[in-house]
Amino acid sequence: MITSTHNPLLKDIRRIARRRDGRFVAEGEDLVAAADAAGWRPVHKLEAGVNIDAAVLDKVSSLGSGTRVLAVYEERFAAPTGPLCVALWGVRDPGNVGTVLRSALAFGAASVVIGPGTADPFGVKAVRASMGAVFAVPVARAAAVHELPGETVALVARAGEPLRGPAAGTLVVGAEREGLDEAVVGACDRVAHIAIASDSLNAAMAATVALYEWTRVAAQ
Amino acid sequence: MITSTHNPLLKDIRRIARRRDGRFVAEGEDLVAAADAAGWRPVHKLEAGVNIDAAVLDKVSSLGSGTRVLAVYEERFAAPTGPLCVALWGVRDPGNVGTVLRSALAFGAASVVIGPGTADPFGVKAVRASMGAVFAVPVARAAAVHELPGETVALVARAGEPLRGPAAGTLVVGAEREGLDEAVVGACDRVAHIAIASDSLNAAMAATVALYEWTRVAAQ
Repeated sequence: MITSTHNPLLKDIRRIARRRDGRFVAEGEDLVAAADAAGWRPVHKLEAGVNIDAAVLDKVSSLGSGTRVLAVYEERFAAPTGPLCVALWGVRDPGNVGTVLRSALAFGAASVVIGPGTADPFGVKAVRASMGAVFAVPVARAAAVHELPGETVALVARAGEPLRGPAAGTLVVGAEREGLDEAVVGACDRVAHIAIASDSLNAAMAATVALYEWTRVAAQ
Repeated sequence: MITSTHNPLLKDIRRIARRRDGRFVAEGEDLVAAADAAGWRPVHKLEAGVNIDAAVLDKVSSLGSGTRVLAVYEERFAAPTGPLCVALWGVRDPGNVGTVLRSALAFGAASVVIGPGTADPFGVKAVRASMGAVFAVPVARAAAVHELPGETVALVARAGEPLRGPAAGTLVVGAEREGLDEAVVGACDRVAHIAIASDSLNAAMAATVALYEWTRVAAQ
């Protein structure tokens, strides 16, 4: 039973939460249950009242008061695979990265590719926003568009053709403000946009709508 | 020039940020610019280096360091109107409420209705997540389904018919975990779901996809 915040394992967990090595932290019963369901074995698992004092766990958890479980896992990167894939380029917001993981799971994408300038998919905020999808969807890395599976479609506001499904390949999504770099757009096979009445969608919403458009006919 | 955090106006702003009266706070240049563009006049406007010391503004802002402007507005509630409307029932997460406001703007909804048990659309987190859409989309309140405009469609995971557009009316969206209350579903004209491969979408993603489905043919 851990009863002190000075416990060496807790110091290690704080370091892991800052992502200084290849491990990451999942906090709360829902995330740990999602990891269990997907067959992930924790490196460490701290349960309030079981092997750690509840008040001490509250202090080490970023969720704060009432956290009942926290577990540490080894990160896993897969190869970029299709038929349906989403690639994120310059998406710095970890909440958007986590939400895209969740949409990818919901719409049956084979992998999510983390491109340059994109938030860490195993960071605490991204893991939480993924609602556990980070354990169920293969996460890959890529440095260039030619590494992506199938036909690559750059999703750009108000450019190219309207996105139409059913289709498969890789949807390449950028940050909402900067959009995709011209060189990245140029390297993609096609350019498409989501036709909307006004304004723009954030990266997570654009990816969600695009996945829906590509899969809606097959799914319904 | 305000140079002290003990200034009475700053105490008032902290109270407003906690939403104890009919005013609300928008922080940051983007939000204040969105309010200006939509014709909202601020009750108070604090600009770093103009009428407030930058370090003092940092302390009063929930954005923290580097905030350049903060403004206070009177909240505005409109009547629920169509033809296209989204109603939120029991959506407690302010980030989701803000994201729905943003999607409503993007897809041209005439109003967003805040139903029972739903987070304050003028709270700091919802305003921020709306990226300024809270100033551009009419926000309404309702206590019962019969107050909603047009045909009411309860959006429920894995129940009813697959949602199909083009259509108009009110999309009634619940929290992802609890879903919609049976009495609310029963009061709606129809029940529909978004066909997805697995898992579920959160309230904001479901509302976004539903708005897209209803407007996609017209828009493209």
